[in-house]
Amino acid sequence: MNLVLKKADNDILRKQTIIDLGGVQIGEEFVVMAGPCSVESEEQVRKTAAGVKEAGAGVLRGGAYKPRTSPYSFQGLGEVGLEYLAAAGKKHHLPIITEVVDLRDIDLIAKYADILQIGARSMYNFPLLLELGKLKKPVMLKRGMNATIAEWLNAAEYILKNGNPNVILCERGIRTFETYTRNTLDLSAVVVAKKLTHLPVIVDPSHAAGRADLIEDLSLSAIMAGADGLIIEVHPNPPMALSDADQQLTIEEFAELMKKVKMTSDFYCKLK
Amino acid sequence: MNLVLKKADNDILRKQTIIDLGGVQIGEEFVVMAGPCSVESEEQVRKTAAGVKEAGAGVLRGGAYKPRTSPYSFQGLGEVGLEYLAAAGKKHHLPIITEVVDLRDIDLIAKYADILQIGARSMYNFPLLLELGKLKKPVMLKRGMNATIAEWLNAAEYILKNGNPNVILCERGIRTFETYTRNTLDLSAVVVAKKLTHLPVIVDPSHAAGRADLIEDLSLSAIMAGADGLIIEVHPNPPMALSDADQQLTIEEFAELMKKVKMTSDFYCKLK
Amino acid sequence: MNLVLKKADNDILRKQTIIDLGGVQIGEEFVVMAGPCSVESEEQVRKTAAGVKEAGAGVLRGGAYKPRTSPYSFQGLGEVGLEYLAAAGKKHHLPIITEVVDLRDIDLIAKYADILQIGARSMYNFPLLLELGKLKKPVMLKRGMNATIAEWLNAAEYILKNGNPNVILCERGIRTFETYTRNTLDLSAVVVAKKLTHLPVIVDPSHAAGRADLIEDLSLSAIMAGADGLIIEVHPNPPMALSDADQQLTIEEFAELMKKVKMTSDFYCKLK
Amino acid sequence: MNLVLKKADNDILRKQTIIDLGGVQIGEEFVVMAGPCSVESEEQVRKTAAGVKEAGAGVLRGGAYKPRTSPYSFQGLGEVGLEYLAAAGKKHHLPIITEVVDLRDIDLIAKYADILQIGARSMYNFPLLLELGKLKKPVMLKRGMNATIAEWLNAAEYILKNGNPNVILCERGIRTFETYTRNTLDLSAVVVAKKLTHLPVIVDPSHAAGRADLIEDLSLSAIMAGADGLIIEVHPNPPMALSDADQQLTIEEFAELMKKVKMTSDFYCKLK
Repeated sequence: MNLVLKKADNDILRKQTIIDLGGVQIGEEFVVMAGPCSVESEEQVRKTAAGVKEAGAGVLRGGAYKPRTSPYSFQGLGEVGLEYLAAAGKKHHLPIITEVVDLRDIDLIAKYADILQIGARSMYNFPLLLELGKLKKPVMLKRGMNATIAEWLNAAEYILKNGNPNVILCERGIRTFETYTRNTLDLSAVVVAKKLTHLPVIVDPSHAAGRADLIEDLSLSAIMAGADGLIIEVHPNPPMALSDADQQLTIEEFAELMKKVKMTSDFYCKLK
Repeated sequence: MNLVLKKADNDILRKQTIIDLGGVQIGEEFVVMAGPCSVESEEQVRKTAAGVKEAGAGVLRGGAYKPRTSPYSFQGLGEVGLEYLAAAGKKHHLPIITEVVDLRDIDLIAKYADILQIGARSMYNFPLLLELGKLKKPVMLKRGMNATIAEWLNAAEYILKNGNPNVILCERGIRTFETYTRNTLDLSAVVVAKKLTHLPVIVDPSHAAGRADLIEDLSLSAIMAGADGLIIEVHPNPPMALSDADQQLTIEEFAELMKKVKMTSDFYCKLK
Repeated sequence: MNLVLKKADNDILRKQTIIDLGGVQIGEEFVVMAGPCSVESEEQVRKTAAGVKEAGAGVLRGGAYKPRTSPYSFQGLGEVGLEYLAAAGKKHHLPIITEVVDLRDIDLIAKYADILQIGARSMYNFPLLLELGKLKKPVMLKRGMNATIAEWLNAAEYILKNGNPNVILCERGIRTFETYTRNTLDLSAVVVAKKLTHLPVIVDPSHAAGRADLIEDLSLSAIMAGADGLIIEVHPNPPMALSDADQQLTIEEFAELMKKVKMTSDFYCKLK
Repeated sequence: MNLVLKKADNDILRKQTIIDLGGVQIGEEFVVMAGPCSVESEEQVRKTAAGVKEAGAGVLRGGAYKPRTSPYSFQGLGEVGLEYLAAAGKKHHLPIITEVVDLRDIDLIAKYADILQIGARSMYNFPLLLELGKLKKPVMLKRGMNATIAEWLNAAEYILKNGNPNVILCERGIRTFETYTRNTLDLSAVVVAKKLTHLPVIVDPSHAAGRADLIEDLSLSAIMAGADGLIIEVHPNPPMALSDADQQLTIEEFAELMKKVKMTSDFYCKLK
């Protein structure tokens, strides 16, 4: 590792990386990304986009290509999903983030997306990292489910080393022995990543907890751990979701959450 | 499990457990416990007590009986350590908390201590839990290094079932594959324990991180996760400590931390 | 660590520890311990003893004091269970092994048992280890569910250091993310323990797998890993067992297993 | 899952999958794959091929494309490495196995290799699995470092579902808290995979242990767990290896190992 570190080899401090998305500056202001786990229909994503924009989200998320444990599970809508997502983002002035699983899809996805997301299962997919390193578009790198912090930062190094400085880190929970939650959110990794690197760090409490009732407390904790933003799953009707039904917030719940997020984020800025 | 749960079998909500220590009410107000990992000398503990009281700590901590991986490591001062701790607590009007490892020491330790602590290695020591269930003195139960939340709460159930309602839970980090930190603080367990039980929950960022430089961020996060307090290792001269040298704060660092802890705790009360 | 190691500080090789139980010599010959998870009745343990002796077991196992996650689960018959076990052992010329959970029970249990077992949950119970270090009776120390090999050997060191050289190590599976088995048998820990120490190592496939259908393959593998013996749960009627119903073999299954165990153990001796 | 299972949906038992490589039949006879971690030079791989063939290996292994945690580590020789490997295999009548990391390399690698290997880091790389499902060439799928057995079998299902029935499973150790070994070999996963599926299962003790001195005992254990073969790292001069120096056997050590492997494998066939 070298390029991801705050302190360069020659001991000079590197500047905080800021990802400028037009209206939103990740790394400079606290940014909340929100939207459905999977893009399921034009209406679903449009409704969600309207709701999360109104509540104060800065980026619209949604999965069109879904990596799933079983080959028989819903794998996403593909390019149609991208179109719905991009249209909804455009209409509500929200940049969009979506996952890329297959490196052959990068050009296609990059036409629609403002940020390309690397999922936890792809963190060790070095050819994918290297290809994303050839872009200038921002890339959000999720930590692997059992990756050490050093492995996570080395994965980011693959992207930076190949020429793309616009990397965002994302902590999304690690696998532990706990069964009450889906994964275990590791906020100490957020604290460490902020201390060691100049990259923005986003926290994903939705995948970490896998339970909607824990999102608020984990989100507010993440702010105080120094996170630069959150990525939250929001669905107009979570029980009908095609994936991750238990962990998605309704639009109303998200709006409530955002009030406390803004207050806590303001408090954090004053405190530090 | 039954008695530890907020919601009783008959679906009635149990009241929040409050541990009244005279001046300090754990479960009612945010309480910081502070002091050295091990009691090493009369002067060391007196200096620390004066410093942490001045900074706003509500309870003095210190180990006199230390369970150690190797039988050749420093095992604590024993009763002399208890005397030093009790004298320092008395002088500075601080109730004291200390660990009990051997159930035959309970009567002796209970003479000195205001709270008896069960360490992570003893969470599955059911005879010890049952004996502490016969006391009325408060007991702080640390979560085992790889205990699930259900196992942790069942361990508390052993104490309550035997007659002692004054139980405090303490999250102190779980073992994960990470090597940068000593353990990994699991704040989602704090959120869950607060949701499910009526017991106060204390967070120990010192043992979780094993690094002094992470204590502040983890402490502030813990407050927003809903913790009822913190337990922090403080030593007048950390590099000279006989145990856990890397994770203890100086008295000055602790005083700085406490300012932010108080502001964050006040903010949390207003927010919720 | 020092006393548990094969290679002493002065670089001299220590001799293999042999536990002489009259007819059986653990560390010298391959020994199978067998019997029910819990002693439930006089008849149950008598039947089992007759069956396992006939099949070639060298030691009779049975739990009279059971550490359980929940205080509301069956905790064992206590002293009555010891009496049943000792009577059955005597009748069938089988030395007996049983678990000690509470150090105050050591004298009582030592009156009945030929080997005292420390369960996985008690591996970090240092006062218990130290008390067992005062005996001369053999002690079998199970590895904690998430203990490293070094922690396990350090726990054995507590016993040896206090004067009791008759220590047997037992690998019983570690907690992993796998859900198909109860725990994950760690045969590489057996290989390492045999390389580093002079203590006999017994393998417990019953608790590791938690499934009767995996016992045979794991047992035969354990022999080739260098184990000095096995401890197997056998019950006259597993579906009616008060604990661990899924993992206990019938007497007939055990007899079948023993044929292959003997052949494999003989093969191993010739090979090495 | 469906296609990987021994028992089809209609409850009919599927036949054991046999991978016919000309002289060698994986799933029918016990097969040892051997060779260097990385192909480093023509001479290194030729020497190794001669040695392992002489000792009885059935397949030559060697890495030409190496996925490495850090982008600054040696990443393999690429196509030149494949050429060396194929030439050595041809000369010594050994089919070759080598890893594919990037799906764009499949055609190139398939020109040289008899078996394509999917490394542990790539087990969740679903696009890669799907592409390999379009081949008829055998594919060996390593289990991810923290994959559950169900996730591993689902990954195999991706390949079978896409049309390639020639899948071999490979257990290579899981990440645990142990530090004495590199990973922890999980032989109970081998037992389970053999029970549930009709696919051959190969064991990789070299990566699991990360230490040459444990290879023999783990290999013999793996045979008794029902493994269909082994994959062993062998290097003419391990201390000079460009990767995994500590875990590679010399050619002489491998020859010694093979004697015991053959005897144990013969014994296993007679026993079962």
